[in-house]
Amino acid sequence: MIIVLKAHATQEQAEKLLAMIESKGLEPLYLPGEERTVLGALGDERKLGELHLENHPDVDTVKQILSPYKKVSRELHPEDTVVNVDGTRFSEEGFVVIAGPCAVESEQQIQTVAKGIKERGANLLRGGIFKPRTSPYSFQGLGLDGLEMFSQAASSNQLGTVTEVTDVEEVAQLDGKVSMFQIGARNMQNFRLLKAVGQTKTPVLLKRGMSAKINELLLAAEYIVDNGNEQVVLCERGIRTYETATRNTLDLNAVALMKQKSHLPVVVDPSHGTGVRELIIPMSKAAVAAGADGIIVEVHPDPTIALSDAHQQLSLDQFGDLMRQIEPFVKAAGRTLR
Amino acid sequence: MIIVLKAHATQEQAEKLLAMIESKGLEPLYLPGEERTVLGALGDERKLGELHLENHPDVDTVKQILSPYKKVSRELHPEDTVVNVDGTRFSEEGFVVIAGPCAVESEQQIQTVAKGIKERGANLLRGGIFKPRTSPYSFQGLGLDGLEMFSQAASSNQLGTVTEVTDVEEVAQLDGKVSMFQIGARNMQNFRLLKAVGQTKTPVLLKRGMSAKINELLLAAEYIVDNGNEQVVLCERGIRTYETATRNTLDLNAVALMKQKSHLPVVVDPSHGTGVRELIIPMSKAAVAAGADGIIVEVHPDPTIALSDAHQQLSLDQFGDLMRQIEPFVKAAGRTLR
Amino acid sequence: MIIVLKAHATQEQAEKLLAMIESKGLEPLYLPGEERTVLGALGDERKLGELHLENHPDVDTVKQILSPYKKVSRELHPEDTVVNVDGTRFSEEGFVVIAGPCAVESEQQIQTVAKGIKERGANLLRGGIFKPRTSPYSFQGLGLDGLEMFSQAASSNQLGTVTEVTDVEEVAQLDGKVSMFQIGARNMQNFRLLKAVGQTKTPVLLKRGMSAKINELLLAAEYIVDNGNEQVVLCERGIRTYETATRNTLDLNAVALMKQKSHLPVVVDPSHGTGVRELIIPMSKAAVAAGADGIIVEVHPDPTIALSDAHQQLSLDQFGDLMRQIEPFVKAAGRTLR
Amino acid sequence: MIIVLKAHATQEQAEKLLAMIESKGLEPLYLPGEERTVLGALGDERKLGELHLENHPDVDTVKQILSPYKKVSRELHPEDTVVNVDGTRFSEEGFVVIAGPCAVESEQQIQTVAKGIKERGANLLRGGIFKPRTSPYSFQGLGLDGLEMFSQAASSNQLGTVTEVTDVEEVAQLDGKVSMFQIGARNMQNFRLLKAVGQTKTPVLLKRGMSAKINELLLAAEYIVDNGNEQVVLCERGIRTYETATRNTLDLNAVALMKQKSHLPVVVDPSHGTGVRELIIPMSKAAVAAGADGIIVEVHPDPTIALSDAHQQLSLDQFGDLMRQIEPFVKAAGRTLR
Repeated sequence: MIIVLKAHATQEQAEKLLAMIESKGLEPLYLPGEERTVLGALGDERKLGELHLENHPDVDTVKQILSPYKKVSRELHPEDTVVNVDGTRFSEEGFVVIAGPCAVESEQQIQTVAKGIKERGANLLRGGIFKPRTSPYSFQGLGLDGLEMFSQAASSNQLGTVTEVTDVEEVAQLDGKVSMFQIGARNMQNFRLLKAVGQTKTPVLLKRGMSAKINELLLAAEYIVDNGNEQVVLCERGIRTYETATRNTLDLNAVALMKQKSHLPVVVDPSHGTGVRELIIPMSKAAVAAGADGIIVEVHPDPTIALSDAHQQLSLDQFGDLMRQIEPFVKAAGRTLR
Repeated sequence: MIIVLKAHATQEQAEKLLAMIESKGLEPLYLPGEERTVLGALGDERKLGELHLENHPDVDTVKQILSPYKKVSRELHPEDTVVNVDGTRFSEEGFVVIAGPCAVESEQQIQTVAKGIKERGANLLRGGIFKPRTSPYSFQGLGLDGLEMFSQAASSNQLGTVTEVTDVEEVAQLDGKVSMFQIGARNMQNFRLLKAVGQTKTPVLLKRGMSAKINELLLAAEYIVDNGNEQVVLCERGIRTYETATRNTLDLNAVALMKQKSHLPVVVDPSHGTGVRELIIPMSKAAVAAGADGIIVEVHPDPTIALSDAHQQLSLDQFGDLMRQIEPFVKAAGRTLR
Repeated sequence: MIIVLKAHATQEQAEKLLAMIESKGLEPLYLPGEERTVLGALGDERKLGELHLENHPDVDTVKQILSPYKKVSRELHPEDTVVNVDGTRFSEEGFVVIAGPCAVESEQQIQTVAKGIKERGANLLRGGIFKPRTSPYSFQGLGLDGLEMFSQAASSNQLGTVTEVTDVEEVAQLDGKVSMFQIGARNMQNFRLLKAVGQTKTPVLLKRGMSAKINELLLAAEYIVDNGNEQVVLCERGIRTYETATRNTLDLNAVALMKQKSHLPVVVDPSHGTGVRELIIPMSKAAVAAGADGIIVEVHPDPTIALSDAHQQLSLDQFGDLMRQIEPFVKAAGRTLR
Repeated sequence: MIIVLKAHATQEQAEKLLAMIESKGLEPLYLPGEERTVLGALGDERKLGELHLENHPDVDTVKQILSPYKKVSRELHPEDTVVNVDGTRFSEEGFVVIAGPCAVESEQQIQTVAKGIKERGANLLRGGIFKPRTSPYSFQGLGLDGLEMFSQAASSNQLGTVTEVTDVEEVAQLDGKVSMFQIGARNMQNFRLLKAVGQTKTPVLLKRGMSAKINELLLAAEYIVDNGNEQVVLCERGIRTYETATRNTLDLNAVALMKQKSHLPVVVDPSHGTGVRELIIPMSKAAVAAGADGIIVEVHPDPTIALSDAHQQLSLDQFGDLMRQIEPFVKAAGRTLR
């Protein structure tokens, strides 16, 4: 860690800081300059966290040299982590397609979707069971009644299942009953929830928060891995920017960067990432080309009557189109579908 | 609601949509134009939510005419709501100062702060008991042990208490034991939590999410009020922008706008809103002038050893300075301190 | 146009507004509602601009029904515009690669690059002649001396040329001497400059401003087309967001959306769009897949000694890699290189 | 400057970099660590710019220790610069009010405004003469015809004048004919224009770009000062964020921060900073309290018929209100109006 002192800092003040660094087992360095004094701390700088040097009144700025995350970093773990969800592998060979409705709405709806996406080549079925919503006046999900319909639809079509968990209690209720947990964008920094899924053996799809930095997403993944669960898939789902023509700005830079910085698989959610049905297919292709290991898309038997997020759900026909259109790009990427 | 159809939409398609509008009890309007057909729906357009017209394949865009929130709007409730927290009133006469450490760290720490801020004119004591943190390696709060220290420090100094709740269980544990709940920025759209505090009689300080729009904050407040608790104070605490010289961008436009749109009190958090200790005093003055009903600031007996957020905590001396420096602006606003 | 009146507006006030609408030749509509009155204006709403209804004290909000741009819109001009730059065609068949250094630095530098990129399959040579820079202490470009070197290098390698113009005077100086003008991100709304290039017959590469909305870019293109020059290529080059891991956030949503909204070709600048050399190749592939008609990349014979933007320039070897790696994706898109 | 090498960098590569640093006259430092090697460069690091170390393939990141600007920094120039515009002083004693229409539209309009704002206490008259506009269909300003009307109106009311210059030619045309140049947000990084005004003796009001960082604004000011003109006033006018309830987000953090970092005066533009007429008065008060040295507001005799920006212009009555309402805050700040 590099510590730049304020202009007024004296040598005595610098020495106090150097002693603090040494007390944590790091090698301190003293670099007086003409305009500013700079200190260094060599060693495992993550141990310096408790000193909060950035808050010290004599300190101007600090610069970390190592990344704040460790276990999810490719530096110490160069090979790709393969995440295995009931036999579906997130890896460099395949390209995983997760599809399904925003919310499970009825037995017929979820059966139709499950059968339809399976026939068209999807790997995993997604569906919301609990739907905490922005407006108090909106549909809130079927709850545990929906779970039964959801599991039934998936198993009768040989599909693994992905569903969102929004609090610790739901993790306990659903563990063992779904193939993969999803942590939604709003909960990316719900650390109690991250800890709970980290203590299970169920793979986790971790979505980037709407205004989360890439480093923050990786740190949230670190939290899960650090609690014992290494089966984590990162998900880029669009960030909030000033642009209003699309609901979010899909950040494919983040996909390419995270594949380089981390060994975890990365998938893309073009439904939320655009919020515009007509953009889902082109952005799915772009996700493949940027190096993603899969996509997660919203599919509904009749989007015009969907109880939530209808604007961005595909019909089964449109989903079939999507699968046909991404195929040449999946091949160009040296991967295969299904 | 105004519904603009896509260029290709036929009259027949328009008529289907008009029938849907009528079925919800609104008056439908048909406005064919040269390039586009426009439909109208007159009446309580909140009832149209379930139709999800924005998702209909023949619909280009929709425009709501009424605000999406109702109970927190000044349109139907022109007079200011006064929120009363153990005798401290958030109203147009006073200017409420909430102060205290980011986290309760020890009995001595919280006693020193409570006594110090009381002497300098604060109204309420804040302090974190549970501290879910970004990094798995950081201090996580004292939990219920901290609650006892916190309540003791407050009561022995005749101060009401404000603490954050981060899940439904904490609401149950803390209800009746603190004077005011805080909903943090990360939980502004945790609807289960909003519902839980909405069902208590404890006043709520609702912080704006880091990338939440003003409308979304008002809708989150609506959620609480709709569940039965009208004692809600809105809090502007800075939004995430591209600027990196400050931790967040304090949006005082939002303060002035929310005072006009809503009857709820509004306070400002200049500590998180800037992330820079030297900016807390000028931005507190600016908050007063923009029309805020109070501020919430982080104060620590020794910020250099604070276990969290040290960069933005004031010492007691600095807090004394703050109180002295805002006083003439509080008077200029026609308000009084304490 | 739909005009929502303020809650207090009377029928008399509404009638005055209706008369104003009628005076402009549009059909006025009066839609009184329970809580709000809404007015409509049917016809060519672009004529209403002068009325500035959005500023009228009785008006709450207005909603345009038609897009603010016209000539660049696909609605009235469904077929793709093909832009022809000295024989290089921006169209749905090919995929155009523009390459070259940030700035022309010396005869040897530009000759090496021109030869190198030609051999590896590029279509057009880019290079900055005038380089207005952020810091007064930075390299400012060679000026007209550079032009000669640049043209020579291009013509001896049968490459067309693209260079940035930053004011009206430069347009006059360079017209006829380069194959294509580039309008940089900082000048996207320099209307005098847009007018100047609009009055030439030289094709224009128009870059999106760092914080420009898609609609604003299309409106800037409209400005050029409206002045008589229809040979405009739009360029997505990344927008400024809160993310700091990359220099900009490349917005490929914008590429897919602009291809749907407009008939003009769209290219992508992955060099500025990421600011990170390692991301240029994956994001070039993603650009192809999102539907772009080409890319513009920075290439330098020795990026380590480049006088500007070295962080994001590719060496010739890296550029060769880029060409090899995008090829399968270009084929998957049904296009061909060169 | 601190230079962090990539993980793979060898000692030999480090030594090459150290030699480069030494060649520029700075003292090189070699700090090998367990996971990364760090280099230091002590001395005037602004000289290292040409080395572009951030682009070197062995370099991961660099951290500047000194601010990138020098002459506008308070570090080397602790006392406030007083800017004098025809006798109106931007200093810590007064609070300067600049008012006038977005554009000069007619003799009668500008005379009415000039007289009206003078009577109500303004110090300087603003008005646009050239108005490059977003849409090709909008009013473009009266040009030099407007200048005569503008100067006449100002001088007959003993007001200094402020007008925007948008290119080098206008600087020559207007120099000596107006009291202060304004550089608009779109031209904040138009370096040729900055140089041109830097070579005059006319004071400059420099507006922050819509997505410019504070550091970039200070660097643009440095550009002007470096060319010889020290009479520069910085202007915060709102930044572009994801929030849509206001046209821009007024960043008063920036005002407080720039007053601490720089010795130049800072003013606020609440008209553009909010884009909402009803917010201009509260945000003007907030600007005073945040430490601004003045404001610049748009005033029009009849905003409902203004040819541009009508939504955010005040009538003369509203301007009178503004002056009355800010007065107690100006006094609280220890300043005086007029």
